[in-house]
Amino acid sequence: MGAQDKAKTIIQPRLLKGFRDSLPASEIPKKAIIAKLEALFSSYGFVPIDTPALEYTEVLLGKGGGETDKQIFHFADNGGRDVAMRFDLTVPFARFMALHLNELTLPFKRYHINKVWRGENPQKGRYREFIQCDFDIVGADNSEADYEILSVMAASFAMMGVEGVRFHLAHRGLFSQMLTHLGIGQHNTEILRTVDKLRKIGRDEVKAQLIELLDSPEQAEAILSYIDKENPDESFLTTLSRLEALGGGESEHSRRMRTIYSHLVSAGISDHFILDPSITRGLDYYTGLVYETFLDALPHYGSVCSGGRYNDLAGLYTKEHLPGVGSSIGLDRLMSALEELDSPITRAGSAADVAILNVQGHHAQCDRAARILREEGLSVSVYLVEKKIGAQYKWAEAQAIRYALLPEEGGTFTLKELGGTESWQQLSAGDVSTIIRKEQI
Amino acid sequence: MGAQDKAKTIIQPRLLKGFRDSLPASEIPKKAIIAKLEALFSSYGFVPIDTPALEYTEVLLGKGGGETDKQIFHFADNGGRDVAMRFDLTVPFARFMALHLNELTLPFKRYHINKVWRGENPQKGRYREFIQCDFDIVGADNSEADYEILSVMAASFAMMGVEGVRFHLAHRGLFSQMLTHLGIGQHNTEILRTVDKLRKIGRDEVKAQLIELLDSPEQAEAILSYIDKENPDESFLTTLSRLEALGGGESEHSRRMRTIYSHLVSAGISDHFILDPSITRGLDYYTGLVYETFLDALPHYGSVCSGGRYNDLAGLYTKEHLPGVGSSIGLDRLMSALEELDSPITRAGSAADVAILNVQGHHAQCDRAARILREEGLSVSVYLVEKKIGAQYKWAEAQAIRYALLPEEGGTFTLKELGGTESWQQLSAGDVSTIIRKEQI
Repeated sequence: MGAQDKAKTIIQPRLLKGFRDSLPASEIPKKAIIAKLEALFSSYGFVPIDTPALEYTEVLLGKGGGETDKQIFHFADNGGRDVAMRFDLTVPFARFMALHLNELTLPFKRYHINKVWRGENPQKGRYREFIQCDFDIVGADNSEADYEILSVMAASFAMMGVEGVRFHLAHRGLFSQMLTHLGIGQHNTEILRTVDKLRKIGRDEVKAQLIELLDSPEQAEAILSYIDKENPDESFLTTLSRLEALGGGESEHSRRMRTIYSHLVSAGISDHFILDPSITRGLDYYTGLVYETFLDALPHYGSVCSGGRYNDLAGLYTKEHLPGVGSSIGLDRLMSALEELDSPITRAGSAADVAILNVQGHHAQCDRAARILREEGLSVSVYLVEKKIGAQYKWAEAQAIRYALLPEEGGTFTLKELGGTESWQQLSAGDVSTIIRKEQI
Repeated sequence: MGAQDKAKTIIQPRLLKGFRDSLPASEIPKKAIIAKLEALFSSYGFVPIDTPALEYTEVLLGKGGGETDKQIFHFADNGGRDVAMRFDLTVPFARFMALHLNELTLPFKRYHINKVWRGENPQKGRYREFIQCDFDIVGADNSEADYEILSVMAASFAMMGVEGVRFHLAHRGLFSQMLTHLGIGQHNTEILRTVDKLRKIGRDEVKAQLIELLDSPEQAEAILSYIDKENPDESFLTTLSRLEALGGGESEHSRRMRTIYSHLVSAGISDHFILDPSITRGLDYYTGLVYETFLDALPHYGSVCSGGRYNDLAGLYTKEHLPGVGSSIGLDRLMSALEELDSPITRAGSAADVAILNVQGHHAQCDRAARILREEGLSVSVYLVEKKIGAQYKWAEAQAIRYALLPEEGGTFTLKELGGTESWQQLSAGDVSTIIRKEQI
């Protein structure tokens, strides 16, 4: 074997561009956040689903494809099928609803947290593989359902301890109403897409593009006066009245927004919500309320949680009309933003509450103590090789483990606080548990 | 839009062969099991990692590929790279260790629970997308590390409430020793692979293949007498002594097995472990202890948790020598087995503790109650459309929700036990919480 071994070439252990490993330092907090989000969604009666990573390309892209086409990973599988990796969780959810409608009871509230893949060029905070966290209510078209999604959003960010979060709301119907009022309703889609680029390309460029599109500086200016606030502190209801006026008066859309806002006020969470008519969401399927979420501390970071109301989720796959409202947290993007803000929830926890060090001849004694401590709800990592005690302390410290336990002759233990001065001798496993639990409070 | 809509063809919402959706009825228990496994692994100081779903094909398959090649999903990405979806979690872990060795402290204990993809033909309990759950200790080559993995396995199955589980242990070194003793050590790999098929093709066919391979009925018989038990109740230590004798006497391998067994006895879990020399594991990289896990109630189902010791995990990617021991639970296969056994842990939980029904004009009152109940730790699903109360009860029952809450005039509530006879009137939200929590005990 020796000669063969030497001849063996080493394969470089490299990763694909835009893909990352998640080491414990990032995976521990990510899992903790996901667990908390799941608990929160469950507390609202949302249930989890999953769908395959791979689907028929036709199912995910529809007949066309267009721009998304270049961004997705698709290929012919061994059976010659044209297959693609999911690029979001919304399209598979639409397909899921069409396929399983008979097995589900509407309104259906679901969440889905999992990976999606896009071939887009990687940049800061954007990768080719990332986790999305979607929650939707299907089968209810009213302000109460709209409000419930907003309420879950607010509760999620509060639970994550994210301060200075603003949910920017707008309404597609109000926007269309204004365009129709201006007599340019036929350009709805192009105008929406242009305005959607506001944060990326700036107000002047949006204006230039609108003028080019509409061939009318006056109409471009009218659109801009719709999306501009009169002043940064304009209240929700003041903005709403202004938009109503620019759209020719009250409508079902403005009434819906007013009701949603009254629910937010009742719940005592309206401070986090801003009516921001510059929010349009580029995607075609939104029909009512739309929203994006920005962090005060990172104004140029872009939205970390977006969504809206769609009146026909699964129209591509079924004639059944399925209205809904939903939201998507870009979990990896959010984590990356929170890391930039040095948020406590992105800091890795320790690998265990206590490390049991290895002293020869004491394995049974240490294993017994480990079992007792685990039964008491503590996490215990046993050091498994023979090394000097100094190296063992270093191992525990590298994993941010706070306590080290050393077996003594006679079956008792020494407990030592790592990086601290405290230590305790002649302890039983029960004593150890008592001390650690007391210190943890 | 109308005419266009009608002309639109509906895309059939079909899934790829071998792929499944996970509906709440399966996703809820699956998530619960994963959360419990994660808590268990953490209690032993194992930390989570993740790796990309896509990697360079060369990195995952090495230079060769062989049989696995046909079973994996691989393709050229938009940048012309030859990429593949991971087919297990062991190969990416080896690559991960080689890449991040400087960032980690050995011994490194990690777990990884995520999806893998294989193009193999789907059959009962086997799919093209499935979840694996791996846990390994790298950087420790001794009986204590071997024992720790076995201990985590036993604790995992106990935690899941799986009864009648048997861990079948063997040792590659002992097997090789026996072959060397017989003078046929050069056929080690082929013999291991043949014996590995015992459960699939049966004893007679294994014997026939061994005779063909070795051209000696006597040697084939000698191998079979090694893997056969004298009687089904042969004890661990009796078997071990027999294997020692057949291998020409005591060795480091038999001493290792004896020590591992003494640890299992000390921990009071040895009853679940059988020394079963017919276990060989087909894979090349195992070098010491190997194991498979069978359920008494489903003897023909195959192993639901397997693994072993390898002396060089990442040899393909680094010259660093990384010994380790690890185990992999086939989570989807296990779930499927447990469903067949109607195990309680595979039953879907309810979507919420209580449903708040929709009575017009009471949204604010109901939303306030929902918030109070959620703060008390209960899960609450608010019914969001206007329907007759009967339809609302059905919706709650379809989701296995036990209680329905109806707003009364004056701000109080009626609580009704669904599918039961109990009901309570004139309750505050606090009363509701008290009643539900009391009944839940």
